Amino acid sequence: MYYTPPLAKLIEQFQKFPGVGPKSAQRMAFFVLGMNHDSVKGFAAALVEAKDKIRNCSHCFHLSAFDPCEICSNQKREKQTICVVAESRDVIALERTGEFRGLYHVLNGLISPMEGRGPDELSIRDLLGRVQGGEIKEIILAINPTIEGDTTVLYLSKLLKPLSLKITRIAFGLPVGSDLEYADDSTLSKALEGRREL
Amino acid sequence: MYYTPPLAKLIEQFQKFPGVGPKSAQRMAFFVLGMNHDSVKGFAAALVEAKDKIRNCSHCFHLSAFDPCEICSNQKREKQTICVVAESRDVIALERTGEFRGLYHVLNGLISPMEGRGPDELSIRDLLGRVQGGEIKEIILAINPTIEGDTTVLYLSKLLKPLSLKITRIAFGLPVGSDLEYADDSTLSKALEGRREL
Repeated sequence: MYYTPPLAKLIEQFQKFPGVGPKSAQRMAFFVLGMNHDSVKGFAAALVEAKDKIRNCSHCFHLSAFDPCEICSNQKREKQTICVVAESRDVIALERTGEFRGLYHVLNGLISPMEGRGPDELSIRDLLGRVQGGEIKEIILAINPTIEGDTTVLYLSKLLKPLSLKITRIAFGLPVGSDLEYADDSTLSKALEGRREL
Repeated sequence: MYYTPPLAKLIEQFQKFPGVGPKSAQRMAFFVLGMNHDSVKGFAAALVEAKDKIRNCSHCFHLSAFDPCEICSNQKREKQTICVVAESRDVIALERTGEFRGLYHVLNGLISPMEGRGPDELSIRDLLGRVQGGEIKEIILAINPTIEGDTTVLYLSKLLKPLSLKITRIAFGLPVGSDLEYADDSTLSKALEGRREL
């Protein structure tokens, strides 16, 4: 019993976060004690507000305080292309590039027999509904090159092929700035396989 | 503008914490969105409760929900020895060893002319008051071997010497499990200087 009870409780809460061990949790809790009262209340309010206001967009399932979300309701986005991703944070990573001007569809996970997650647990039915609406011309699958990702891509491509759309998957190869010598075998194979004429 | 407003606000709050960069802050904010409503409310309440209830003990200045703190009010602690530390977290580190059975005194910082912090900003006057109470026989200075720490130790020892107490400072040397070959010069000098007969 080194910690006074409310401090022990706070440290325990911080330790639940991913990547936060006992030492970081203690450091964060002491940081809270060093903040002024209003800042602590502001932080507590920001937590509750984010949880209360943010929902999955009913069109694309991206996390947003609005429904439809900021992207779905943006008139400047191209409505013919849907980029399919596993998680909302993938949308944010792609938006950061500023390269994609179409719409998204968040699956809310990937097919994983190991974790007992089948296609029905994901928003695949909703994706199909959007595609059958007619306007969509291309589906880009921006899905991780993992076993779960590959399984999901296979499932989706079989499902979407009959609908006569262009279906693509983002490229795999050497990361920019990396060294060929240190690339793992599968990345190097993918890079060779995906070679492009100059 | 990649983040929906309440999410942006929450990420900003997490980024204020020490050692939390933009990536970790995003990960922590998404973790909050994945928690259930009650857990988020519980976390928010733990933050406010810790800040509201925890105060500096009026005897030793250790952070506690009680006054006097759990250590000062513990009848089993030896009242003749005071271990002086810079911060409350140093008390916790020392308590973890289970080796010290006396009382503490938290200075709330160290003397730092660079940061404009003089002796009056610290709880040195209160320490003097406790010592002049009479019961105290030994003062252990558990203060970091840094410029600020050494300055504070020098100041305190000058102040306390006339009171005919035993004044000690914790030992510096090789950390347990470390390798002599990789120790820095000053640590090695301190280790030599502090050598003990076997």
